Amino acid sequence: MKSVFSTLAGAFVVDNKPKIIDFVAFDDLEAYDKRDDVVQKLVKKHDASVGDAGQYLSLLKDKKYFLFFRKQHLLLSVSLIRESVNDGLLVMNAVRAADDLDKVANVLVKRLREWVGAHVPELSHFIDDHAVFLRLFAEKSKKELLKEFNVVESMGADLTVADVNEMKSLGTEVERLYALRENHLKYVEKVMKRYCPNVLALCGVGVGGKLLVLAGGLKRLAMLPSSTVQLLGAEKALFRHLTRKAKSPKHGVILNHPIVQGAREKGKAARGLAEKISLCARLDYFKGEFKGDKMRMELEGKFAN
Amino acid sequence: MKSVFSTLAGAFVVDNKPKIIDFVAFDDLEAYDKRDDVVQKLVKKHDASVGDAGQYLSLLKDKKYFLFFRKQHLLLSVSLIRESVNDGLLVMNAVRAADDLDKVANVLVKRLREWVGAHVPELSHFIDDHAVFLRLFAEKSKKELLKEFNVVESMGADLTVADVNEMKSLGTEVERLYALRENHLKYVEKVMKRYCPNVLALCGVGVGGKLLVLAGGLKRLAMLPSSTVQLLGAEKALFRHLTRKAKSPKHGVILNHPIVQGAREKGKAARGLAEKISLCARLDYFKGEFKGDKMRMELEGKFAN
Repeated sequence: MKSVFSTLAGAFVVDNKPKIIDFVAFDDLEAYDKRDDVVQKLVKKHDASVGDAGQYLSLLKDKKYFLFFRKQHLLLSVSLIRESVNDGLLVMNAVRAADDLDKVANVLVKRLREWVGAHVPELSHFIDDHAVFLRLFAEKSKKELLKEFNVVESMGADLTVADVNEMKSLGTEVERLYALRENHLKYVEKVMKRYCPNVLALCGVGVGGKLLVLAGGLKRLAMLPSSTVQLLGAEKALFRHLTRKAKSPKHGVILNHPIVQGAREKGKAARGLAEKISLCARLDYFKGEFKGDKMRMELEGKFAN
Repeated sequence: MKSVFSTLAGAFVVDNKPKIIDFVAFDDLEAYDKRDDVVQKLVKKHDASVGDAGQYLSLLKDKKYFLFFRKQHLLLSVSLIRESVNDGLLVMNAVRAADDLDKVANVLVKRLREWVGAHVPELSHFIDDHAVFLRLFAEKSKKELLKEFNVVESMGADLTVADVNEMKSLGTEVERLYALRENHLKYVEKVMKRYCPNVLALCGVGVGGKLLVLAGGLKRLAMLPSSTVQLLGAEKALFRHLTRKAKSPKHGVILNHPIVQGAREKGKAARGLAEKISLCARLDYFKGEFKGDKMRMELEGKFAN
């Protein structure tokens, strides 16, 4: 009795010694996809039956098949890696880049505030908002700034144009970093619109993008219980709770969602929102209908003050 | 017997009750600088002698002098603050900004490498140098890159132009950050040339600038013992040594100096260099002659392999 079975490298026919008596190599992954046809042909040709590769593994150790296996495994790996790049990966990378840009720009703007303190310390004193600080420093001279703040005599030194320009060049750069962050988020929004429209409609790009990063993609976000979704981003507080009897955290990154922000009972709103997020992620992952906007309106009505 | 004495607020004449019988207010710090003239005039006018303010402090509590003291003290504070802004402060701020830019750009370039990995993972694999990586990614298409690396089939996915442009915009920004860092260092060099030419000639802008930041200015660098200069920037290792019996560190930031880098006995070279740095800092602080370049040549001769 002869058996035919297929592997990634090709289809084999063995007799009952057992010994390999025929072999059809697969040249690429497409050939492997059509392996059933090949097996059927070999079954006819050798008057054999379809067998299982498992019991003949030792026969496959033969070195002459090694190259076939190697080649096909390589092709398979490459194809799996390529397929792993999907919109989810792009979203996560762009969200992480936007996060990094935010952190990095904050570091630099603090450095700039200190530096500018030698020149017009009043600017940093009166203006807390980073963006306004950068704009004013870029657009106004020291004289104009002092006039605006009603300061007669500045505590800062009068520096040369070269000194001030050095600071201004840093300021320009920081403004560009913030602008780039905005662009990345616009891109994230575009990708999320086709990748997970429900999550996007419910959470917006800020919270939605962060949730995807924290969960590690849409699939995992869809699989998580909503109680976990509620705490994504609060891992530190959760750990404190588990190890040191601190209060249990009620919300992770979804605390930043306007619905939770605006609710009087934040814990309750966070739980309600997390449940809907789970639903939306599942709808998106399984390509279900679009009702993220309806869910959002529902929650807004429920938790409005 | 009448006494005349001066304070920041003005000159006082007191009789032997004692009671204040005359007062000339100083309107600004310049008037205070010329206080001796005022005192002499009062001495003549009242036929008095010059006294010491110390024994009449209780008289000065009178509220009517309060505003004069307040005004002058305010002016003095502002002037001291303004004078504290010197080239040293500018150098330190610019060096710190350059350091921050370096760190920040490294964070972003690592993020970019991961992101680009979805598209042309080969680029990050073959190119370790950040600058080269950025240049190649900016200038070459995926096809050209693969050709350059002799890769037939990329492991990366074929992304849309929009996806790739998002990465490219980050790359452009990171290149700008590195360029800005270079500009800041050029500026630091210019300021150091007039502020501490000897330290600059001996250490260069990288090591020299960092030493100024670590010491907290030229004055403090000049006052430090050279054994401390040798270890500036190795505080962590020193602390480990002092508390946990680790080996004592032999060099801090001066390890990055080409002379120490190139020396076989790095500890000895570091000691020699630190001594010269102390000398140079003192020469610069006390406006001494320029011999930083000679000292550098001396050391290079001594520690050359």
